[in-house]
Amino acid sequence: MTYCLAIAIDDGLCFISDSRTNAGVDNVSTYSKLHIFGESGNRQIMLLSSGNLATTQAVVAKLKKDIRQDSPVSLMTVSDMEEAADYVGEVSSSEQDKHRSDSGKAFEASFIVGGQVCERTPKAYLVYPQGNHITTSADTPFLQIGESKYGKPILDRIISLESSLETAVLCGLVSMDSTMQSNLTVGPPIDVVLYHRDSFEISRQYRFEENSEYLKQIRESWDARLKEAFANMPPIAWSANWDDNSQIIPENNGSTAETVPKR
Amino acid sequence: MTYCLAIAIDDGLCFISDSRTNAGVDNVSTYSKLHIFGESGNRQIMLLSSGNLATTQAVVAKLKKDIRQDSPVSLMTVSDMEEAADYVGEVSSSEQDKHRSDSGKAFEASFIVGGQVCERTPKAYLVYPQGNHITTSADTPFLQIGESKYGKPILDRIISLESSLETAVLCGLVSMDSTMQSNLTVGPPIDVVLYHRDSFEISRQYRFEENSEYLKQIRESWDARLKEAFANMPPIAWSANWDDNSQIIPENNGSTAETVPKR
Repeated sequence: MTYCLAIAIDDGLCFISDSRTNAGVDNVSTYSKLHIFGESGNRQIMLLSSGNLATTQAVVAKLKKDIRQDSPVSLMTVSDMEEAADYVGEVSSSEQDKHRSDSGKAFEASFIVGGQVCERTPKAYLVYPQGNHITTSADTPFLQIGESKYGKPILDRIISLESSLETAVLCGLVSMDSTMQSNLTVGPPIDVVLYHRDSFEISRQYRFEENSEYLKQIRESWDARLKEAFANMPPIAWSANWDDNSQIIPENNGSTAETVPKR
Repeated sequence: MTYCLAIAIDDGLCFISDSRTNAGVDNVSTYSKLHIFGESGNRQIMLLSSGNLATTQAVVAKLKKDIRQDSPVSLMTVSDMEEAADYVGEVSSSEQDKHRSDSGKAFEASFIVGGQVCERTPKAYLVYPQGNHITTSADTPFLQIGESKYGKPILDRIISLESSLETAVLCGLVSMDSTMQSNLTVGPPIDVVLYHRDSFEISRQYRFEENSEYLKQIRESWDARLKEAFANMPPIAWSANWDDNSQIIPENNGSTAETVPKR
């Protein structure tokens, strides 16, 4: 499986991805799922991929080929990020169509494409296997593909448009850590890219390996703080009349059985 | 959707379920997904359900009917919880078979059945749509059905066999709250049942309604503590050499493009 995440805030963009790929549990490999296409001073476009590895590799190869061959449409010619998302969607759909089996089974893949082109606002798009796409909003300034659910609650609570890029990347790494703790098929190396608005350069780019001291620090630190936060929760005061709205479920009042005839 | 949770620890059992059911987004209703079958002093068996509402209702009706009619096998005759899980699995499979369409599409349902029968150890089982089942372990002393992923990380970190029932129910409610925050199709009323080992009585049984002050307290308290915990995380020291294992991804060293020919 995969977990990839893009955060689009006022300060810029943050991309985080794991690198674990599996074709069955006994065929687990490591592939980078983060690709960068850019021209210093003009545009920086990041691509995250999830899904069938053959499809995602074919799509990335096609994107590179279009740039190399100076095709009329490529990530170097699109005039904004929405055009980039349209283009990635078309490439993805056509690659999937090539290998669709007779039963209609598609080798599906999803992508997040984000970045900044010329003077346009930095944006990120999630491209569905069908080729259409969605973007972020003020209420949900992040996009996820792959195993997205384990790591969503912390993002829901922390990330807002006003967050700093440092907060975004730290929260993204905590979200990644929660996912890795709960799902063994998501794992390091973890790739991270930060892009500051209007810089047209990659601001930070790191790869955290399996034995990374920093990932370990994040895990232990978050684990300790989460346990502390939980320990400080107000205890449940069972004996007090602490909630007017809590009721004994009527059908089983007391300890007699719901459906047992008296015998 | 649904989120139901059972925690099986040394002290006893804890069951938590939401009550939201939907058949399409414009047909959302409230049904209790928690059913109790018991005989004071002899056995207490709790059932949580998820999946097709027609199937879960048919299964519950059949379980009640078997008890009412003094059938040779019912939740009142099984000699331990594993037999109870086998029995629920058989009833579930046969109800699904009745309505299987020609295309083989089943109206699937999953169940958690837990409790204590006579002097046997209290146990909980997750019954799959296919009728087979799994139970808890020392490493994973909880079972989830429905929208299980959002609320799993906190359970993974907090719950152990040695946890108190109070810790278990509080952690379960936080897990439920995280799920409700991230997925609108899971919602109140929230049913909670606590069972103390060897008591053969329901220890606590509450229903938290939509406007419950206590649920609101849990949400606000956990939200504040989680934000505080996050705020206390060590900041990312980008400038320092904080990780020997972090590397610039080689293929894009510096800010030159990965694949762009010099033009």
